Amino acid sequence: MNDGLNLQGILDRTASDCRTMTGGGRQATYIPELAKTDTALFSLSAATLDGSVFSSGDSDSLFSMQSMSKVVALSFALEIFGHDYVFARVGMEPCSEPFNSIMKLEMTSSTPLNPFINSGSIVLAGMIEDRLGERAIDDLLKFASGMTGRRGGLKVNERVYMSESSTADRNRALAYFMHSVGTLPFGVEESLSLYFKLCSIDVRTDDLAVMGSTLANAGLNPVTEERMISIDTAYTVTGLMSVCGLYDESGEFAVKVGVPAKSGVSGGIVCAAPGRMGLAVFSPPLDKGGNSVAGVKALSRLSRELKLRGM
Amino acid sequence: MNDGLNLQGILDRTASDCRTMTGGGRQATYIPELAKTDTALFSLSAATLDGSVFSSGDSDSLFSMQSMSKVVALSFALEIFGHDYVFARVGMEPCSEPFNSIMKLEMTSSTPLNPFINSGSIVLAGMIEDRLGERAIDDLLKFASGMTGRRGGLKVNERVYMSESSTADRNRALAYFMHSVGTLPFGVEESLSLYFKLCSIDVRTDDLAVMGSTLANAGLNPVTEERMISIDTAYTVTGLMSVCGLYDESGEFAVKVGVPAKSGVSGGIVCAAPGRMGLAVFSPPLDKGGNSVAGVKALSRLSRELKLRGM
Amino acid sequence: MNDGLNLQGILDRTASDCRTMTGGGRQATYIPELAKTDTALFSLSAATLDGSVFSSGDSDSLFSMQSMSKVVALSFALEIFGHDYVFARVGMEPCSEPFNSIMKLEMTSSTPLNPFINSGSIVLAGMIEDRLGERAIDDLLKFASGMTGRRGGLKVNERVYMSESSTADRNRALAYFMHSVGTLPFGVEESLSLYFKLCSIDVRTDDLAVMGSTLANAGLNPVTEERMISIDTAYTVTGLMSVCGLYDESGEFAVKVGVPAKSGVSGGIVCAAPGRMGLAVFSPPLDKGGNSVAGVKALSRLSRELKLRGM
Amino acid sequence: MNDGLNLQGILDRTASDCRTMTGGGRQATYIPELAKTDTALFSLSAATLDGSVFSSGDSDSLFSMQSMSKVVALSFALEIFGHDYVFARVGMEPCSEPFNSIMKLEMTSSTPLNPFINSGSIVLAGMIEDRLGERAIDDLLKFASGMTGRRGGLKVNERVYMSESSTADRNRALAYFMHSVGTLPFGVEESLSLYFKLCSIDVRTDDLAVMGSTLANAGLNPVTEERMISIDTAYTVTGLMSVCGLYDESGEFAVKVGVPAKSGVSGGIVCAAPGRMGLAVFSPPLDKGGNSVAGVKALSRLSRELKLRGM
Repeated sequence: MNDGLNLQGILDRTASDCRTMTGGGRQATYIPELAKTDTALFSLSAATLDGSVFSSGDSDSLFSMQSMSKVVALSFALEIFGHDYVFARVGMEPCSEPFNSIMKLEMTSSTPLNPFINSGSIVLAGMIEDRLGERAIDDLLKFASGMTGRRGGLKVNERVYMSESSTADRNRALAYFMHSVGTLPFGVEESLSLYFKLCSIDVRTDDLAVMGSTLANAGLNPVTEERMISIDTAYTVTGLMSVCGLYDESGEFAVKVGVPAKSGVSGGIVCAAPGRMGLAVFSPPLDKGGNSVAGVKALSRLSRELKLRGM
Repeated sequence: MNDGLNLQGILDRTASDCRTMTGGGRQATYIPELAKTDTALFSLSAATLDGSVFSSGDSDSLFSMQSMSKVVALSFALEIFGHDYVFARVGMEPCSEPFNSIMKLEMTSSTPLNPFINSGSIVLAGMIEDRLGERAIDDLLKFASGMTGRRGGLKVNERVYMSESSTADRNRALAYFMHSVGTLPFGVEESLSLYFKLCSIDVRTDDLAVMGSTLANAGLNPVTEERMISIDTAYTVTGLMSVCGLYDESGEFAVKVGVPAKSGVSGGIVCAAPGRMGLAVFSPPLDKGGNSVAGVKALSRLSRELKLRGM
Repeated sequence: MNDGLNLQGILDRTASDCRTMTGGGRQATYIPELAKTDTALFSLSAATLDGSVFSSGDSDSLFSMQSMSKVVALSFALEIFGHDYVFARVGMEPCSEPFNSIMKLEMTSSTPLNPFINSGSIVLAGMIEDRLGERAIDDLLKFASGMTGRRGGLKVNERVYMSESSTADRNRALAYFMHSVGTLPFGVEESLSLYFKLCSIDVRTDDLAVMGSTLANAGLNPVTEERMISIDTAYTVTGLMSVCGLYDESGEFAVKVGVPAKSGVSGGIVCAAPGRMGLAVFSPPLDKGGNSVAGVKALSRLSRELKLRGM
Repeated sequence: MNDGLNLQGILDRTASDCRTMTGGGRQATYIPELAKTDTALFSLSAATLDGSVFSSGDSDSLFSMQSMSKVVALSFALEIFGHDYVFARVGMEPCSEPFNSIMKLEMTSSTPLNPFINSGSIVLAGMIEDRLGERAIDDLLKFASGMTGRRGGLKVNERVYMSESSTADRNRALAYFMHSVGTLPFGVEESLSLYFKLCSIDVRTDDLAVMGSTLANAGLNPVTEERMISIDTAYTVTGLMSVCGLYDESGEFAVKVGVPAKSGVSGGIVCAAPGRMGLAVFSPPLDKGGNSVAGVKALSRLSRELKLRGM
C-alpha cells in the first residue's frame, strides 16, 4: 500500500479533494507579513523511510515555519543540553490553553507548561542564545537544514522576521513576565530575537516532510542517511507532539488523525508517523484554534487511508 | 521478537525487575477500601492481536477499575449515542489539571474538558443512566466483560462501591456544580451512583490487557473474535487515551512510553498499542500524579524493548 | 438636617422618585419562591441613633433576608467564638468574584475569602450549628430580633426555606467541595440547612434599618437601648460591609454611596452609616450583580443629601 | 478631642509607641534605590480641616510616593477626562489579587479591575501622556503640589526613577500584554515612563497628610483654601481607597482602621477621614502584603482614639 506510485496517487487525490476544504478558515493576520499570503495555495508532501519524497499541489510554495520551528528548537536543545537540563526549565504538560496564554504561568510562577507553547519555546531560544551567542541562528539553520535534508540550506525570511518583531506585544509580555519571576534567566530581547528568527525560517512542505521522516525514523534522516538526533530525542519530541502539537485542539487532532504533529500559524502542519513516514501540508486558512483547516482534513484522510495509527 | 515464548520471557524479566521499583510511591487512601490493598502486589499482562494472553507476577489479584472504567464508559457511550451526541456534552481537550479539578469548569461554565476527567465521566454516566435506567449497570458490566473477554463476567465490588459513595465529597461537589450550570442535565445522585459502580468493577491485569488488545485491534476482541466497538470508536478512545489518559502526567507518559493508556488510582494501567497488543500492569503505590510508580516504569521498559511506538 | 420631620420628608421624596427607577432590573428567579414577589413593591426606612424610626413606601412588606443574614451570622459568630477563631476559618479579602464562585476556593484550597460570600457564610453556619446543635436557629432568631428590635420576634419563612433547599445545587457543590478540602469541618447538610434557614428569615425595612442603626451605634441598639454586640464586632462587621457587602459591585457602591452596606437577592439592602443612622431599602428588581436597582439609586441619593460619608 | 494641642500629643505618643513596631516587616528591595532607605525612620502627620498640620517623628524624611501616586493620577484623570471616560477604561472592582497580577487581566481580556492596581494606573498614565505629551509630568507635579500644599513644589527623584525603569519587568509585561489586547491603546514605553515618574515623586508625611485632608474636605485644600478637585472626584477617590487602597489587605485594613487610605511600597500610607482630617505615616518595613507594618499599627490606634470611623 505504501509503495511510491501508490503514495503519489493518494497524495494527488487528497490534494485535489481537500485543497478547497477551507470553509470558515481565515489566514493569520496579526503578523502583517502573513496577511499577504495567497490563501488559495495548497501543498502536500510525504517522505517515506526509504528516502523517497512525494509532493502534490503548490509544492514550490515557501512559507515560514512559525510554531513548527518549536520542533527544531526542542530537538536542538535536547541534543545540546540533554533531557534533564531542558526539562528543569520547561514542563511536559499538555496544554489546554490558547497558544500564548500568560495565565497559567502567573498562577504557578513556575516553568512554562511545555516546550511547544510560546513561553516554553522562548525559554529554549533563550538558553540556546545564552550558550551560543551570535552564532546561535547559524547553528540552528544548519541543524534545521540537516533535519529537512535541504541542500542549499534554509534561510530566515527577513521581512517576516521584521514583521514578527514589530508586532510582538504578547510574546514581549510573556518574556518580561518570565524574566521577572526568574523562569527566563536570559536576556529578554536576545531571547525574543532568536525566537522570532526561528519562527521566520522559510520552508516548503517537502522540507517539513523530510523533517517528519527524520523523527519517524528515530532520528536518522532517511534521505541523507545522516543521524541528526538520538532515538531518545526522537521519542521525546514525537511524544510531546502527540499531546500538545496543535495547541488546545491537540485532543481533537489525536482523535481525527492520531499521529504526532506540530502546526504553525502560517498554515503548515508537520507530522511524524513513527516507523512509517513524515508528512507535511500547507494551506493558510486557519480554524479558531490556529490550525490549517484543509491541512487537518487532508491529514485525517491520509491517516485513515494509510492506516498511520497502526490500525 | 513478538512471538509468545519471547513475550512471556520479557514480561517475566520486566515484572521481576520492576515489581519493587515503587520508590516514593504511596497507595491511594482517600477511599478507605483502597487503603487495605497489599502494596507489594505486582501483576503484568499482555494480549497480542492473535488472541494470546501472557501474564506474570500476582496475576490472580483482583483490583477495582477506578478511572480505567472511564475507557469502558466512553466506548459504551460512543456506541450507544454516537460521536456527536457525546462530544456535544464533553470536550476533547487535554487536561493539565489535577484529576478532579472544579476550577476549569467554573471558569468556563461549559462542558467538561474531556471524558477522562471525573466531571466528564460523571456526565457520561448520567447520560447512560438517564437512557437505560436500572439496567444501566448490567448492560455496562456485560459490555465490559465483552471488552475483556472475561467468561464468567465482571462484577461490581460492593465494598469498594460503598466506600466510594461514602467518601465522595469532591465528586459530589462536581456533580452538583455541573447540575447547577446545566452541564449535567441528569439526576445528580443517580449519575454519581452509576459512576461509582463503574469505578468499583473488579478486574485482573489479563482482563485489562485483553480490553487493551480489543482497542488496539480496532474494536475486534482478538480472544473472542467478537466485534465490540466500531473502528471509529477505537480511534476516538485511543486518541484521547494518548493525550489525557494519565491526568496531568499525560505528557510525561507520552515521552516515556508513547502508547495510548489509562490509569486508575487502584494502581492499574491499561495500554493499547495500536496494531500490536494490549498491555496492563498493577502495582498500588502511586506517584503524586496518581499513577502507579512501578507500572509506569514497567511500561516504559516494555515500550522500548518491544518498540511499541513503531520505532 | 437630621431631625425627624426633615428625614421623613426626605425619605418620602426619595421613595416617590426612586420607586420606579428599576430600569433593566429583574427579580431573582432561581429560588422559585422569590420569583413570586410583586416587583412593584418599594420600601425605605431609616433609624437614627436617638431611637427614631422612619419609613416610607410599602413598609409592611415582608421579604427574606437572603445574604443580608450574613451580617447576622458574622455578628453572632464574632460574639460567640471571638475574632481569632472566626478569622482562622474565613478571610477578610474583598471579593471581585461573583457571589457564589467556587474557582477561587479551588485555586487556593484555603479558607473562603470572606464571611460575606456564600462559602464563608456556610462555614459560619457550620461552626454555629456544630456548637449549638438544634437550638442554633432559635438562638440566631433571638439574636436577629435583638439587632432589629422586632418585638414579636423574627421567623423563618418556611416556604422560602423549602424553596432554597430544593434549588441549592451551587451551594451544595460549594459545601461538599469545602468539606473535601477540610475548610468546612462540619456536617455538610447540617451546615447548609442552618444557612438556608438564615437566608429565609422574614423582615421589613424598618427591622433592617434598626439593625443598621445598631451597627452604626457601635453595637448598642438605639431603640431598645440593649447592647447587642461589642464595639470591636461593630468595627469588624461594618469594615467588611464597606469592602465586600455588594459582591463584585462593592467598589461601585463605595463610589456611589460610600457607606457600609449588605445586599440580598430578595431586593433588600441594609446600611450602617457609623455615628449617623441605619438605613434599609427594598425593591425586588436586581441588576446583573444581584443588587436592587432602585435600592442603590435611593441610597446614592440619600448618601449625598444626608452627607452620610461625613462630607 | 480634636483641638491642636491634643492632636500633637496624640501623634507624639503614637509615634513613640509605634515606631519600633515593625516586627517581621522588611523594606522593599526589588527597586534597588528603595533598598537603601534607613528602615528605622518613622514619621507621622495629621492635617485637620481648619488648615492645621501636625507632625511627629522624622518628619523631614523624603520618600517616593510609589503607589500613593495612584491617588494623584486618578484625581487628575477624573478632573481632566471625567468619570465616564476614565471608568470606560478601568474598572471599580475591589482587588483580592496581589498588586501586579496579570492573571485576572488575561482571564477576561477586559479593562484593569481598578485604578489602584498597577495595570489600571499604567492605563491612566497612558491616557494622560497621550493627551498632554511632554508637559504631562509638569502638569501632574503642579497638581500634586496643589493637593499637598507644598510651596516649593514636588519633584521627581531621578535616581528612584532610573531605578524603577531598570527593574520593571513585571510592569513592562503588564503594559505589553494590555497593549496586545487593546486595553492600553497608548504608547507602551511612554505610558510606563510617566507611570514610573509618578511613582518617583518625593514627599514627606506632612505633604501626604495635607493631600489626605484635601480629599477629606471634599476637594478643597484646607491649607491653601484652593479647590483642587470636585466633590464628585473626592467621593470617587475616597470610595475606591476604602475598598482597594491596600492591595489584598484592603479588607483587613477596613476592619482595623476603617478609613479610606492608599499605601506605597516606600512605606508610606496616606489616609483621608472624610469630614475629619488627613493622616499620613511613613515607616519602611513592609508586611507580606506590601504595606507598612508600623504604619498600619499607628493608624489603627489613631482611628480608635480619634473615632475616625464616626463611632
